[in-house]
Amino acid sequence: MDVNKEILKLDWEREPKGLYAPIAYTLAAGGKRVRPQLAMIGSQLFGGKDEEVLPAALALEVFHNFTLLHDDVMDKAEVRRGRPTVHIQWNENTAILSGDQMMIEAYTLLSQVPERALARVLQLFNKMATEICEGQQYDVDFEQKSDVTIEEYLMMIRLKTSVLLANALQIGAYIAGASEEEQQAVYQFGINIGLAFQIQDDILDVWGDPKTFGKAVGGDIACNKKTFVYLEAMRRSGERAPQNASVFGDPAEEKGERLEAREELEDWYNQVLDDNKEKIARVKEIFEQLGVREACEQVVRDYTQRALDILETLPQNEASEELRKLAEKLLVRRV
Amino acid sequence: MDVNKEILKLDWEREPKGLYAPIAYTLAAGGKRVRPQLAMIGSQLFGGKDEEVLPAALALEVFHNFTLLHDDVMDKAEVRRGRPTVHIQWNENTAILSGDQMMIEAYTLLSQVPERALARVLQLFNKMATEICEGQQYDVDFEQKSDVTIEEYLMMIRLKTSVLLANALQIGAYIAGASEEEQQAVYQFGINIGLAFQIQDDILDVWGDPKTFGKAVGGDIACNKKTFVYLEAMRRSGERAPQNASVFGDPAEEKGERLEAREELEDWYNQVLDDNKEKIARVKEIFEQLGVREACEQVVRDYTQRALDILETLPQNEASEELRKLAEKLLVRRV
Repeated sequence: MDVNKEILKLDWEREPKGLYAPIAYTLAAGGKRVRPQLAMIGSQLFGGKDEEVLPAALALEVFHNFTLLHDDVMDKAEVRRGRPTVHIQWNENTAILSGDQMMIEAYTLLSQVPERALARVLQLFNKMATEICEGQQYDVDFEQKSDVTIEEYLMMIRLKTSVLLANALQIGAYIAGASEEEQQAVYQFGINIGLAFQIQDDILDVWGDPKTFGKAVGGDIACNKKTFVYLEAMRRSGERAPQNASVFGDPAEEKGERLEAREELEDWYNQVLDDNKEKIARVKEIFEQLGVREACEQVVRDYTQRALDILETLPQNEASEELRKLAEKLLVRRV
Repeated sequence: MDVNKEILKLDWEREPKGLYAPIAYTLAAGGKRVRPQLAMIGSQLFGGKDEEVLPAALALEVFHNFTLLHDDVMDKAEVRRGRPTVHIQWNENTAILSGDQMMIEAYTLLSQVPERALARVLQLFNKMATEICEGQQYDVDFEQKSDVTIEEYLMMIRLKTSVLLANALQIGAYIAGASEEEQQAVYQFGINIGLAFQIQDDILDVWGDPKTFGKAVGGDIACNKKTFVYLEAMRRSGERAPQNASVFGDPAEEKGERLEAREELEDWYNQVLDDNKEKIARVKEIFEQLGVREACEQVVRDYTQRALDILETLPQNEASEELRKLAEKLLVRRV
């Protein structure tokens, strides 16, 4: 079953047009449709029927797109998937109201899962939706917080990104009749893949190939975003010695150089500039000097490995093979 | 069971505070709690158990408050229930995100209804939520539309106001085990009371007692809102003769005077003024000259009577008595 086709089959030719046209516009823009695919695969892993999980798969995609729509209003983002965002194409009030309706549409789709599964699926979905809003709020809070730790950042991206992937898999598995233990396994696969994906994204923002990355390289640095890469640099340049081998020589001299690097980083991250070329180049140098790139790439490999280890415990069939491929496609992106 | 107490018992002492504090603030502001009361009464009418309908009653109140929160952002309203609105007290992004979370909280509460009732209650709730967003969109569309008819206005207020009251009653009745016919009866009671209430509100905006109305009298006139009162005036001053007896004398002269009144009304409604005193006084005169007040009051009486007629067909018990009192309290407001 081609979930992309099923999403495009949803009918938005309804009145009032001002409410539904922005929903059609948002969902027609494409995207990788990873979440509904994960729901389908979660079901297929355990021999479920595609048509039984399809309403939940569509609900997850509509909900995901609702979060993008409202996030774009909050971030004042002007472009999404190469087209003007809804609040630019229409206006802010339209983006708020059509976004609200998209969330209701997600619940309407969700209500069409087999009745035997409804109570639990609704519970899982509500928990996930809550966590996504919490993640978004932490993301906003962290912009104003000067002492964000790596642990806090990981919690935030787990809520904001991973739980949706994890829940898609779990909901699919649950509807297919998987045991609680099996559901937890696919859930944890999703969490680990999500973390790996987000950290990989943070790495690509610094060292990605401008031709293939899709976004402007260095964008996170330009807007002083406290990504995993930045927080790892802060951790490594902090007063406590880094756990990994250092690229510096003499310990005392090394500590001094690390603190200097930290001060320079903090200084750059307090600036908002029109031309970010020098800032991006210099921050990149400091990151490299501190050995941040290798450290972050290792973290991505670790989370990916955890996910692949979990995959070994699941039924081995076409679906697990697809899951492996999907994981690789997400993660083996060119640096 | 005191629903107001149950609403205030909901726990919002959760992290992140930036997400949940605005929800606590919104729900602590009070309001008449009409919707959850209607859900409880809908259940009590048919001998249902309070605790079985309570989660849905709370969900309806939380959802209603979510709509107010987002409406206030869209309307740029600065005050709600005597306090700064959320987007003023915090900021617009907070109002959007905490509002989104309130909708999720409504669905989370709803998921706690008895499992036997869940599928149908979720379906009724989704339909209602969709209609409320559609009503809001029509309200926005009508601001730009010069030829709104009374029928279109009635459709809009039915969606925006009545369906929530009607669904509260129906959901309560359904959970209590009422038949489809009984559910339809309480639903129609809610629709008629909602229409009567909204039109009464439009009347009070023009002829209400400034001491008891709560809002500034003439506010709808000042901002050129096409209320039932205005649309009735336009209908009565249109080219077709009004169906009711005229307050004018000679038919030809009468038609001329009516068209003159219409032109003057249209002229006033094309103006945005700093001082609205003269405009409000003159528009009020035109309304009275056209016999609009009596006509609108008759419409309110008609809808109220329809609701009371339906009430006669329902079980006569303490709950139906409460429903009658609630209807009277809503409608017998001082003009």
